[in-house]
Amino acid sequence: MVIPPEMFSLPPGSEATLQQQIQQVVSEAIVSGRCVSGEKLPSSRKLADHLGVARITVTLAYTELVANDYLTSRGRSGYFVSETAPLRPTFEEVRTPREDGVDWAAKLRPTPRMREQIFRPPNWREFKYPFIYGQSDSTLFDHRNWRACALRAVGRRDFDMLATDHYQRDDPMLIEYILRHILPRRGIRANPDEILITMGSQNALWLTAEALLGQGQKAVIENPSYPGLHEVLAPINCKIEAIDVDAEGLPPSQIPSDADVVFATPSHHCPTNVTMPLGRRKEMLDLARQNDFVIVEDDYEFEVSLLKSPSPALKSLDQAGSVIYVGSFSKSLFPGLRLGYVVAAPPLIEELRRLRRVILRHPPGHMQRTAAYFLSLGHFDAQIARMSRAYARRRTVMEDSIRKYGLTPASNARHGGSSFWMQAPEGIDTRQLARNLQKQSVLIEPGSAFFPETPDHSHFRMAYSSLSANRIEDGIALIAEAIEKVAA
Amino acid sequence: MVIPPEMFSLPPGSEATLQQQIQQVVSEAIVSGRCVSGEKLPSSRKLADHLGVARITVTLAYTELVANDYLTSRGRSGYFVSETAPLRPTFEEVRTPREDGVDWAAKLRPTPRMREQIFRPPNWREFKYPFIYGQSDSTLFDHRNWRACALRAVGRRDFDMLATDHYQRDDPMLIEYILRHILPRRGIRANPDEILITMGSQNALWLTAEALLGQGQKAVIENPSYPGLHEVLAPINCKIEAIDVDAEGLPPSQIPSDADVVFATPSHHCPTNVTMPLGRRKEMLDLARQNDFVIVEDDYEFEVSLLKSPSPALKSLDQAGSVIYVGSFSKSLFPGLRLGYVVAAPPLIEELRRLRRVILRHPPGHMQRTAAYFLSLGHFDAQIARMSRAYARRRTVMEDSIRKYGLTPASNARHGGSSFWMQAPEGIDTRQLARNLQKQSVLIEPGSAFFPETPDHSHFRMAYSSLSANRIEDGIALIAEAIEKVAA
Repeated sequence: MVIPPEMFSLPPGSEATLQQQIQQVVSEAIVSGRCVSGEKLPSSRKLADHLGVARITVTLAYTELVANDYLTSRGRSGYFVSETAPLRPTFEEVRTPREDGVDWAAKLRPTPRMREQIFRPPNWREFKYPFIYGQSDSTLFDHRNWRACALRAVGRRDFDMLATDHYQRDDPMLIEYILRHILPRRGIRANPDEILITMGSQNALWLTAEALLGQGQKAVIENPSYPGLHEVLAPINCKIEAIDVDAEGLPPSQIPSDADVVFATPSHHCPTNVTMPLGRRKEMLDLARQNDFVIVEDDYEFEVSLLKSPSPALKSLDQAGSVIYVGSFSKSLFPGLRLGYVVAAPPLIEELRRLRRVILRHPPGHMQRTAAYFLSLGHFDAQIARMSRAYARRRTVMEDSIRKYGLTPASNARHGGSSFWMQAPEGIDTRQLARNLQKQSVLIEPGSAFFPETPDHSHFRMAYSSLSANRIEDGIALIAEAIEKVAA
Repeated sequence: MVIPPEMFSLPPGSEATLQQQIQQVVSEAIVSGRCVSGEKLPSSRKLADHLGVARITVTLAYTELVANDYLTSRGRSGYFVSETAPLRPTFEEVRTPREDGVDWAAKLRPTPRMREQIFRPPNWREFKYPFIYGQSDSTLFDHRNWRACALRAVGRRDFDMLATDHYQRDDPMLIEYILRHILPRRGIRANPDEILITMGSQNALWLTAEALLGQGQKAVIENPSYPGLHEVLAPINCKIEAIDVDAEGLPPSQIPSDADVVFATPSHHCPTNVTMPLGRRKEMLDLARQNDFVIVEDDYEFEVSLLKSPSPALKSLDQAGSVIYVGSFSKSLFPGLRLGYVVAAPPLIEELRRLRRVILRHPPGHMQRTAAYFLSLGHFDAQIARMSRAYARRRTVMEDSIRKYGLTPASNARHGGSSFWMQAPEGIDTRQLARNLQKQSVLIEPGSAFFPETPDHSHFRMAYSSLSANRIEDGIALIAEAIEKVAA
């Protein structure tokens, strides 16, 4: 590789000679690791042109650098960074201590108290029993066809279309598939002006909250609920009320009359997985009209309805347009894709599109088009079917093992979901339990991050989306053992 | 394609018979266009299982639908949507008028006055002389190698790594390339904890403003300046002061002493393309320390420095860490990529990463990795060289034509840039000029969107990044003609 001349510029205001300055910037680039051994220096002519100095000055500087073993000369081929050039030990240590620096703590806007994150080490793949939630299982994903679709999406014709700035428009192919094939399965009919593609459901929740909640307004959330939602709401200057869920999810009768926006997960409550029955859904919709609030329905994993057919979305019953529906491909495809969508009334979609443009313009066209091909060529349906079969097998093993080792589920999930919400015996702090288990290559998720207000350390979540069926029993045995050890 | 049974669900609370209900939902799906002719219905067994009804009920409903010409039966192959099934005229007309709907105008947070957008019709490709800015020229882009890199990035090994949720981490391969090869050309040295990948520079500006500006604080911007920045600042409850630029860009002496954040484009001022000389840069950095403000340096197109070597970034002179550097691949690769980066002190980067997580989690790993391959395999350098050669040719034709037809540049851009900032003769409203020219297949950008405060309709921008050299003269002749016509 040839180092471009632009890599070098002379220090302004230096009192050294030009030749010295050149030696200095080249040697510094080598020492700091920006140029590495074997790389070719720009020709003396090119560097001289670039720096605006005589060519001989560069040649003399190079000659000196050869003498100092920074460079080697290979005759007519030019100058190269020497194999034995001096080097600082690692790239990390480049930093020069700065004086009189900026006081960033004073500069940054006061941010809300750091929310507790779900416990999930980045190296979770190295664990033998990762009962963690929300990551895709690469053994179940149809990688071959995804790759074919990605390749198709970077074909010449698509590329030209997708490479330009889309301003505010989404990929019409993806929009059409969602409208025609995905939403109808949830009982939802919508038009192109009622949907917006987002960077996953996190982005959808953020945009919605930003558009609808301001000072003095009230957001109602479930207790417990999704920690990503707590993070979205915390910096907004609004009132937040968390309502305890029961065995049928959020009780609508508890929604305060001054609610402005209610965030709910009726299909699979997060994290307990309970499904809200039809009666409550209707009650909630009636209340929404009566008390003039809107409902954000986060339908984050309807595809994983293993035990029964999925109940239609709350949005499907919504005649008045009170429901803002949030969907995601993170669970059905993979989370790194960062694609989700919002379905809502056109005026809200228009505002969300405007907000999206200000913060990021639009989700990359190639990701949208790749997903559109994968969906429309039928790979998505096959994918969901394959995942459902595997998850159903794992769920059976989970249930059997939970029974066998005497663990206690904290809810009754009639429609499945890819995890179990568990109750630890009294006196056990699940944060400590998780830390103990980590040493035995077992990962569980302590439940505390899901509680927005009063800390609760007695619950934990066990997911099976990243764990093959044959590891489940051993993992659960270890969890039971760890619980006994602490309880003893 | 087989229609999945999940497409259908029975209407809750219906008083019709089950058979009637099934007929109703199927026929409605056909009429609404969700199921189209030729698609295969689920088998009676599968649909019966899904709906929890007897198989004979489904069979009877299907038979009735055949009689009504919604379906055709192909014997043992099953039931298909009929070729002659009734259909509403277009997909767009699905909407059922809703009663008692939500009053969205009252629900939405008051948003700042809609900012004027840069005039740029979405169908700009269909124009013969599109002097528009910021879109990539597909004839200059190395599509073949980009495709090869994209393919590599969805290979099995990379895929598994990239498909998972990255939480807060960026692609280390991309980070390393930027640190080792791109920033050094701008004279900047940085460590991995001093950089964050963003969804283009728009996202970088938004994150930075959000982290640093709050009530009562003062943002200083250039006048004129980038409209995307106005959009970012408008909803933030801070003071905004716009300072007139002159032939050397922003005059530091005019920066008020109570400035908190100064947004500047020293390398190529947007939109005039003038370059701030070294003296002013030093003065600005000294002032930043003296008056304790920070500077956001938007280095949005340093690659297009055609006339001279690019001057080093302001950030390269920054000893105190006052400068927050924003870079982008939108101009050097393509805008639909949505990749940019921020380089700043570690505490700020940490906060930006936290904010990014809340609003969108992270930019998709596959886009990051594709770019990383394209950069590190040397295609990026070749790309920039090719673009620079083509732009230099076009610039010469632009300059000659501007002279020949007597148009008036409004600034002296010593380092190039991919556009010209123009002054219209007195009395000409460039918005009207742009509308007139549009009818002749010429697109120019009226300058008014760049002025955050007092309207100015006497400037316009002409870019040449989406227009081949042989069209430039004719386009400029038409612009000159249109100006004369109005002036006459």
